[in-house]
Amino acid sequence: MVPHLLTALKGPLLDLERRFLDATPQIERWLRLEWQEHTPPFYCSVDLRNAGFKLAPVDTNLFPGGFAHLSDSTLPLAVQAAMAAIEKYCPDARNLLLIPETRPRSPQYFANIQRLAAILRQTGLNVRFGSLDPAVVAPSRVALPDGSSLLIEPLRRQGRRVGLADFDPCSILLNNDLSAGLPPLLADLPEQVLLPPLHAGWAVRRKSQHFAAYKDVAKRFAKMLEIDPWLIDPFFSSCGKVDFNTREGEACLATNVDQVLRQMRSKYREYGIQTTPFVIVKADAGTYGMGILSVKDASELRTLTRRDRSQMAVVKEGMQVHEVMIQEGVPTVETVQDSVAEPVVYMIDRYVVGGFYRVHAERGRDENLNAPGMHFVPLPFATSCNLPDSNAEPDLAQNRFYAYGVVARLAMLAASIELERTDPDQSLYG
Amino acid sequence: MVPHLLTALKGPLLDLERRFLDATPQIERWLRLEWQEHTPPFYCSVDLRNAGFKLAPVDTNLFPGGFAHLSDSTLPLAVQAAMAAIEKYCPDARNLLLIPETRPRSPQYFANIQRLAAILRQTGLNVRFGSLDPAVVAPSRVALPDGSSLLIEPLRRQGRRVGLADFDPCSILLNNDLSAGLPPLLADLPEQVLLPPLHAGWAVRRKSQHFAAYKDVAKRFAKMLEIDPWLIDPFFSSCGKVDFNTREGEACLATNVDQVLRQMRSKYREYGIQTTPFVIVKADAGTYGMGILSVKDASELRTLTRRDRSQMAVVKEGMQVHEVMIQEGVPTVETVQDSVAEPVVYMIDRYVVGGFYRVHAERGRDENLNAPGMHFVPLPFATSCNLPDSNAEPDLAQNRFYAYGVVARLAMLAASIELERTDPDQSLYG
Repeated sequence: MVPHLLTALKGPLLDLERRFLDATPQIERWLRLEWQEHTPPFYCSVDLRNAGFKLAPVDTNLFPGGFAHLSDSTLPLAVQAAMAAIEKYCPDARNLLLIPETRPRSPQYFANIQRLAAILRQTGLNVRFGSLDPAVVAPSRVALPDGSSLLIEPLRRQGRRVGLADFDPCSILLNNDLSAGLPPLLADLPEQVLLPPLHAGWAVRRKSQHFAAYKDVAKRFAKMLEIDPWLIDPFFSSCGKVDFNTREGEACLATNVDQVLRQMRSKYREYGIQTTPFVIVKADAGTYGMGILSVKDASELRTLTRRDRSQMAVVKEGMQVHEVMIQEGVPTVETVQDSVAEPVVYMIDRYVVGGFYRVHAERGRDENLNAPGMHFVPLPFATSCNLPDSNAEPDLAQNRFYAYGVVARLAMLAASIELERTDPDQSLYG
Repeated sequence: MVPHLLTALKGPLLDLERRFLDATPQIERWLRLEWQEHTPPFYCSVDLRNAGFKLAPVDTNLFPGGFAHLSDSTLPLAVQAAMAAIEKYCPDARNLLLIPETRPRSPQYFANIQRLAAILRQTGLNVRFGSLDPAVVAPSRVALPDGSSLLIEPLRRQGRRVGLADFDPCSILLNNDLSAGLPPLLADLPEQVLLPPLHAGWAVRRKSQHFAAYKDVAKRFAKMLEIDPWLIDPFFSSCGKVDFNTREGEACLATNVDQVLRQMRSKYREYGIQTTPFVIVKADAGTYGMGILSVKDASELRTLTRRDRSQMAVVKEGMQVHEVMIQEGVPTVETVQDSVAEPVVYMIDRYVVGGFYRVHAERGRDENLNAPGMHFVPLPFATSCNLPDSNAEPDLAQNRFYAYGVVARLAMLAASIELERTDPDQSLYG
């Protein structure tokens, strides 16, 4: 069950991990106090990159689509965390409406929905599935990889509530990232709990806002732990008006790429890191690993092929890219079966519930792995099944993924703060 | 890792388990609503007996001493549940004082304390150990089975707070069942959180009060699920003034044994059960499996040997037994490696976090297994490590221990209600 991992940890990261383990009570208390001030999103997944010399989040997904990739052994954790979440939002809830992606890229996606529904049913909820797709006018069955099927039903708006023909939910869980825009069907639902809120969708959300919130979180956390915040935080910058097809905004992009590379070179010198720095240029609102470019020098932007440009110009649901984020590239040292890998950590409420490795056999350590051809290897976030039942080591629960769980939770905390800052109803935060 | 289990399930219990699985959302919602009304004890373990035809709790321990017997793989669950508990009682807690048993019966006991401390440290607490033993006047090291050691320190009372020489805790966790009486050191601590409260100790607690509360819980649960409450609830009765040495109260005992056996015979006839009924006679305040007798006929009480009598007369800490509970005996059909076994379920806050089998090679299906010679086999409360990572079955998290987890949580709910009823400060429940 445990993937063969070549975690070529060396230098500062090993120090960082030890620092995390030694300071566990301090870190957990710090997080506990933060969760008194901020409400975590219902669920969240975080892509991490472990460079050996630094460990940082590179993407935070508020509509995680990989529940099917979690190890079976972590399911009780997910159920327990979901119980805590449901109790907070709607303690007497009986019915939950789950809204999946409209046109998922992979048929595997519905296995994710099935797994998620199984977790939620264990918390005491009747779960049914409603589609935002106007083409779904009657209940229809979607086939699942295991041979079973899911019944997807048309959504029905009745006054101030949304539901299905004979199903009136107290809570609605979005697993649809709203890339296509805010659906009027879901606007103004004062009597129902919508999780996460509409402004968590990509129609509103911006990666640069998330990483601005993360920068603040990382800074405070690093101060508490007395470490350099850069060890957990990638540099970034953004450009607001870019058109890859007409080459508008190219100068802004080049300036920002240069700036981030300069900042990185300075840090690389400080830590004696020999690798060539690279930056990731990506759509500020976007997902599915679309619209992502790895750049080692600003000049590369001037020589993009037409194909590169058109791939950058449009993301999911045909959305045009005009806002672009430039993020410090964090190479990954992790490999699974000789392929480059990066950990993805899953959380429900404020708890780490599992994770997996995203593995890509045809990509390099300095490339985006979220691309066709990737596969997934479940991460057992617990001690190995092969270990004997040895008597109570003090650090048994502090397994080697502890550092990943800490950094992933920092990113989730940043998402909470980001959602507070971008909430259209600012009166909530007095 | 998975013990070879011969769970010879047949008849009503198989029906019961299927009923539980089918009604999972209903059961979990019912429990969720109950936990809105009642606060679970910090932790709790429940001994269950699975008779094939019924599944019932036979003992509920509010000072669980077997954390070291839990499977490693369930530790993250325990940490997550402890996080939820700590957040409820003392969200800003930094220090926790753990008070272990004074003279534990087994050296293994301190491995339990070590494991418990490891779980609590992962929630962001500094954990240290204080002894109620007046003989502990200076910090002393206790050796652990794994070769390490624990530092046990003398308790220090300062005004309205208790702590250690240089350690002022916000919360105090008792793992000492207070069989020896309520220690003045722990009385009147209005500024600190004492978990569980003093009246959970055996100096005050009575099994018959617990099972009276359980009867109410089982009745309401059975009504919701439309089952016979007897399928999850053992008959019981109690005698208040018994002296095994002077044979005082023998008539009361005999009458009550007869009555419980009569009730059982009637139910056995109703369900066509062929086994001979037996009752368990045990101290109403007591633990450690001391003072326990298995009786098939009231006449056996008149022919007890002097050795039997003196074993019944005194339990832990030399406490005299005068109050006695007579409980329907529930035979166990479970065996582990050809030895008779019973499941023990561990809970923290309102969550099942793990469990193990108590196994005894020299005892029968109708005998108490909590006796010298017993051993423990961890129960993996999750799908087996040997299973392939199959894609999302809807009932993956509903493993075969689900029914055990449900009945154990009913017993924990009964403990909450019992502690409310016996709380000396009734103004809390208005």
